[in-house]
Amino acid sequence: MARLSGYVRLWEAGRIQSSPYVRIVHESPSTAVVDGDRGLGLVVGPYAMEVAIEKARQVGTGWVSVKNSNHFGIAGSHAMKALGHDMIGIAMTNASALVAPTFSVERMLGTNPIAVAIPSGNEAPFVADFATTTAANGKLEILQRKNEDAPLGWVQDKEGNPSTNASEVRQGGALLPLGGDREHGSHKGYALGSIVDIFSGILSGASYGPWVPPFPAYVPIPENMPGEGIGHFFGAMRIDAFRPAAEFKDHMDHWIRRFKEARPAKGHERVLVPGEPETEFEKERMEQGIPLLGPVEEDLLALGNKWGLTLRKS
Amino acid sequence: MARLSGYVRLWEAGRIQSSPYVRIVHESPSTAVVDGDRGLGLVVGPYAMEVAIEKARQVGTGWVSVKNSNHFGIAGSHAMKALGHDMIGIAMTNASALVAPTFSVERMLGTNPIAVAIPSGNEAPFVADFATTTAANGKLEILQRKNEDAPLGWVQDKEGNPSTNASEVRQGGALLPLGGDREHGSHKGYALGSIVDIFSGILSGASYGPWVPPFPAYVPIPENMPGEGIGHFFGAMRIDAFRPAAEFKDHMDHWIRRFKEARPAKGHERVLVPGEPETEFEKERMEQGIPLLGPVEEDLLALGNKWGLTLRKS
Repeated sequence: MARLSGYVRLWEAGRIQSSPYVRIVHESPSTAVVDGDRGLGLVVGPYAMEVAIEKARQVGTGWVSVKNSNHFGIAGSHAMKALGHDMIGIAMTNASALVAPTFSVERMLGTNPIAVAIPSGNEAPFVADFATTTAANGKLEILQRKNEDAPLGWVQDKEGNPSTNASEVRQGGALLPLGGDREHGSHKGYALGSIVDIFSGILSGASYGPWVPPFPAYVPIPENMPGEGIGHFFGAMRIDAFRPAAEFKDHMDHWIRRFKEARPAKGHERVLVPGEPETEFEKERMEQGIPLLGPVEEDLLALGNKWGLTLRKS
Repeated sequence: MARLSGYVRLWEAGRIQSSPYVRIVHESPSTAVVDGDRGLGLVVGPYAMEVAIEKARQVGTGWVSVKNSNHFGIAGSHAMKALGHDMIGIAMTNASALVAPTFSVERMLGTNPIAVAIPSGNEAPFVADFATTTAANGKLEILQRKNEDAPLGWVQDKEGNPSTNASEVRQGGALLPLGGDREHGSHKGYALGSIVDIFSGILSGASYGPWVPPFPAYVPIPENMPGEGIGHFFGAMRIDAFRPAAEFKDHMDHWIRRFKEARPAKGHERVLVPGEPETEFEKERMEQGIPLLGPVEEDLLALGNKWGLTLRKS
């Protein structure tokens, strides 16, 4: 919801096509490349994930790389589409460059998230969905609004020095790959972000690295883009292409329960399994509704007014 | 080489079968489960990777989960088998539990490495190969020998407190997932290690989590193992199942050159691309030979003597 007016501005600037002709342009039994025709990733992504699922139904797994797309929202929501088919779902996307590789002062990669959703039986499914940076950009924006410092290891300044200034990225600095610095494994976060960039951008023919088009409509598109638009990568693996789904799900339940029962460290109530906090939030919000921050609500009301929609403030 | 006598001890203890009947026990056009019949992973892995490559040749991609295996050596060496076929190679493995999930004092995961090898044209290939922990256990062993402290973020003590004691893991402590602590994204490293465990262990029917059999032959096998042996997961994706390989490789060269040219931070000569240091080492060692540490050389000589082999010290 917070991004809706940003999407509209991209559409107004002619960068998002509202009725795209999304289609497969290359395929094999287990793979496809989808051309998003400059559609919004929220439209292109579900199409591509559906192709991956259909291929998995046919030959066990399906893998779809997407070009010529835009922001696709929440990676995990695409990956989770596979769960109801007793499949593992995978989703990732590249994004405009805010992240400096290890030893670099230049921003070369986006926050390039990876999501993996794995079916379970009685337990809530395993859903991991994370940016390949120490912290997502949204977390820095929250600190900026509160005028608070960021922990060391989240950002560097424009010379590449460690910094706690939450506004560093706006001042020529950069987000840091997961790990933070070389001593703590930032080369691994850098490698992960790179893999997402290559699977999403280079396998499909989308743009990549420092040439990925930016999200804000007022930031110009990079010159000499080596490919078309933003890239995504989706995967679906049918569980019973490996072993009977019921057996797998029993073992997933066993895995999840064992990890939940791990002895917690002092000061922590319990150990969480990836996706568990979100499952709890989902339940709560299905009952109580989705809280919107004041500025987001104002933004949506203004957008509604502009386009002649009647929205009622809660 | 440093692990050879460990492999022999596992064989002497009856935990590794020297002539395993490695075979496919379940398959679909793009997937297989391989039973390693308690063979050494260094034997089972290449078989399974070959199955993945053959399936990729047929239907675009191949994905093989392996049970009933043992230590498979260097993840990257398996992934790199795909490169000569113009395929992307992926390899991962679970391992005995040394790593505490975020908020846990219990060790639940191995260092569970991931390797991804991506073909290029004129540039050296992109090869990422990393443990899903802040630091691999081998790095701690080096510090122990030198009697030096570990950086904060590598290990915790047996109560879950941050520690710089490089011997902490031997004293009931644990390695930490990539990220180190929650504030620096350790839940992401924990999720990655979990994904490796599930793809390797639960998809195949191998053991998983805290029940993965240990490497040292003197450590007893866990009770109530939920599966058979150690698990691996291999993948191969044929480039031209997505786009013409020559086009892809041109763009990979472009990607690699651009990242190598990124402006370095003060105090660093240049930005490295994943696999670059290893490519340089390989070249040097093909010319000058592979240096062995004194204790490794002694260990190999003792092993040779025990089995009546004549080895000559260099």
